[in-house]
Amino acid sequence: MSDLAKLTLDEVHALAMEIFAAHGVSADHAGALADTITAAERDECKSHGLFRVPGYMATVKSGKVTPDSVPTVQDLAPGVVQVDARNGFAPLALKIGREPLVKKARDQGIAALALVNGYHFAALWPETEALAELGLVAFAFTSYMPCVAPAGGIRPLYGTNPIAFAWPRAGGRHPLVFDQATAASARGEIMIHERDGKPIPEGWAIDPDGKPTTDPTAGLAGAQLPFGGYKGAAIGLMIELLAGALIGDVFSYEAGANDNGDGGPAKGGEFMMAIDPARCAGGGVNGREAQLAHAEGLFEKILGQDGARLPSDRRYSARQRTPTEGVTIPQSLYESLQELRNG
Amino acid sequence: MSDLAKLTLDEVHALAMEIFAAHGVSADHAGALADTITAAERDECKSHGLFRVPGYMATVKSGKVTPDSVPTVQDLAPGVVQVDARNGFAPLALKIGREPLVKKARDQGIAALALVNGYHFAALWPETEALAELGLVAFAFTSYMPCVAPAGGIRPLYGTNPIAFAWPRAGGRHPLVFDQATAASARGEIMIHERDGKPIPEGWAIDPDGKPTTDPTAGLAGAQLPFGGYKGAAIGLMIELLAGALIGDVFSYEAGANDNGDGGPAKGGEFMMAIDPARCAGGGVNGREAQLAHAEGLFEKILGQDGARLPSDRRYSARQRTPTEGVTIPQSLYESLQELRNG
Repeated sequence: MSDLAKLTLDEVHALAMEIFAAHGVSADHAGALADTITAAERDECKSHGLFRVPGYMATVKSGKVTPDSVPTVQDLAPGVVQVDARNGFAPLALKIGREPLVKKARDQGIAALALVNGYHFAALWPETEALAELGLVAFAFTSYMPCVAPAGGIRPLYGTNPIAFAWPRAGGRHPLVFDQATAASARGEIMIHERDGKPIPEGWAIDPDGKPTTDPTAGLAGAQLPFGGYKGAAIGLMIELLAGALIGDVFSYEAGANDNGDGGPAKGGEFMMAIDPARCAGGGVNGREAQLAHAEGLFEKILGQDGARLPSDRRYSARQRTPTEGVTIPQSLYESLQELRNG
Repeated sequence: MSDLAKLTLDEVHALAMEIFAAHGVSADHAGALADTITAAERDECKSHGLFRVPGYMATVKSGKVTPDSVPTVQDLAPGVVQVDARNGFAPLALKIGREPLVKKARDQGIAALALVNGYHFAALWPETEALAELGLVAFAFTSYMPCVAPAGGIRPLYGTNPIAFAWPRAGGRHPLVFDQATAASARGEIMIHERDGKPIPEGWAIDPDGKPTTDPTAGLAGAQLPFGGYKGAAIGLMIELLAGALIGDVFSYEAGANDNGDGGPAKGGEFMMAIDPARCAGGGVNGREAQLAHAEGLFEKILGQDGARLPSDRRYSARQRTPTEGVTIPQSLYESLQELRNG
């Protein structure tokens, strides 16, 4: 008997939809969530796939999230659209905000989306990739629960605070996308080392006294470190400001203080920017083709170096395989999900 | 006899102006350059102060830069302004582009500036700080000469590629600004270690075979490393795209190939973004005060940790001192500058 359960992508989607329906999640939210989860499984981003469903459902059971919230869209400026998730999950709000953001970026050259009052428990590459598929350059930033120490400090303050960036590619290729936390490691990685009784690499965390540690338990009790020292910490700080004060939403430490600890995502904001290359170099839509072709020359230079790869290649490689081969999840997770399907 | 020469900030500015005049640099360019150089000396950013003047003048002597170029401004979109430096130095182009960028950011909520065909040899904090002084959130990106290996690669491809970010602060405080290279260290730092016969820290560079090295000579012959591993490399790549293909200017490797090797800056682009917080949270100008006050709460949390500081505090501390105490430069540099004053 295998300790892995195998599913097709359609089965992933259907299972997620059934679980959401059993918990009173509205059809619009269920569809947006299931799409995001299925995309993560398709790209073998396991930590954002079905693995997240129990957390999503915990927020419904605890009453923290409004499972049938209807996001509202407000035009704040010619270049800025706000989507208020109204205490609901982020994926539906992002889906609803995409069209006005794209229109503004094309009309103005550059535009921003301020997502507030949402529960974001997914990666940021889906929303940035979607914009790049439409020919735009895209950025996304969100803060998330205090766990990383500021530069020079020793106590958790910043979230793991991911930044995502997407660039549209010429010739119908998938966009170039990176989506990376500003923490040196995912918190879950430290928890897995603790579970397995293994030391963590140096540079991931400090103990409660602020000393470097390779003991995962001490690291979880202390603080995670930013990637790349004070430079990574500065980017984490920037993300706190963009996804917090700039759009009138909370910082990580406030999100943590507000949260009920049900194990699901905490409420907070996300900030996105979209840029139309056709409006940035004076050549219009025709010039845009030349701009993207120019970028391909850089990508060739990167790939011309042995061992180098583009940030999103691993995901796109998985995307080739999983529609035919299906995906696997731990049997224990599969069984939990079967139980959740019963409400 | 001291090996340091002492100057007041007025003397710094006057000396720079005299040197530029002696080399046929137009009054507009000379003023913008001298302001930038004096600001760097004032903030004790020595590597961007008078130290840069011989490099600037080398580009005039070699005929690479047009010392009396007149930048042109073009409106590319409601949210995008292009400033063509027309083969001249960047500071004047940035100065000319500021007003349209600020107007667009206030009108649209978010705006971008595409600086092309300029020679940038200064830090990025001056132009971002200037926008934050006007109440805007600002970003700047530029690429610069191939010296950093891409993730997984071993040969120089990306520039040191700095990113700067500025946030306006409440209560008349100086803006919070960071300005950091995406290389693990400045190239000049490695050269100083080589001169002094000292090993460089691990993580700064690899040798020509791609092996980690602490030998500065081997590191200069090989490639510099990005800060923070593949995550820093991804940000370096993003900056190549923003300051290159997006705005129709060159990548670092193209700038390097085009350059005549006179020791001054190479020609390239810079990309800036400016955001008006008053247009991002629905509260208008009054709301903006609350947004900035909110951010002060985060800064207090940071400074409440022993050993933690805000990114720009060291510069502002110097700025308190130097107007009365003056600044020092190496006597050898002072003598070179005296010679340059004679043309």
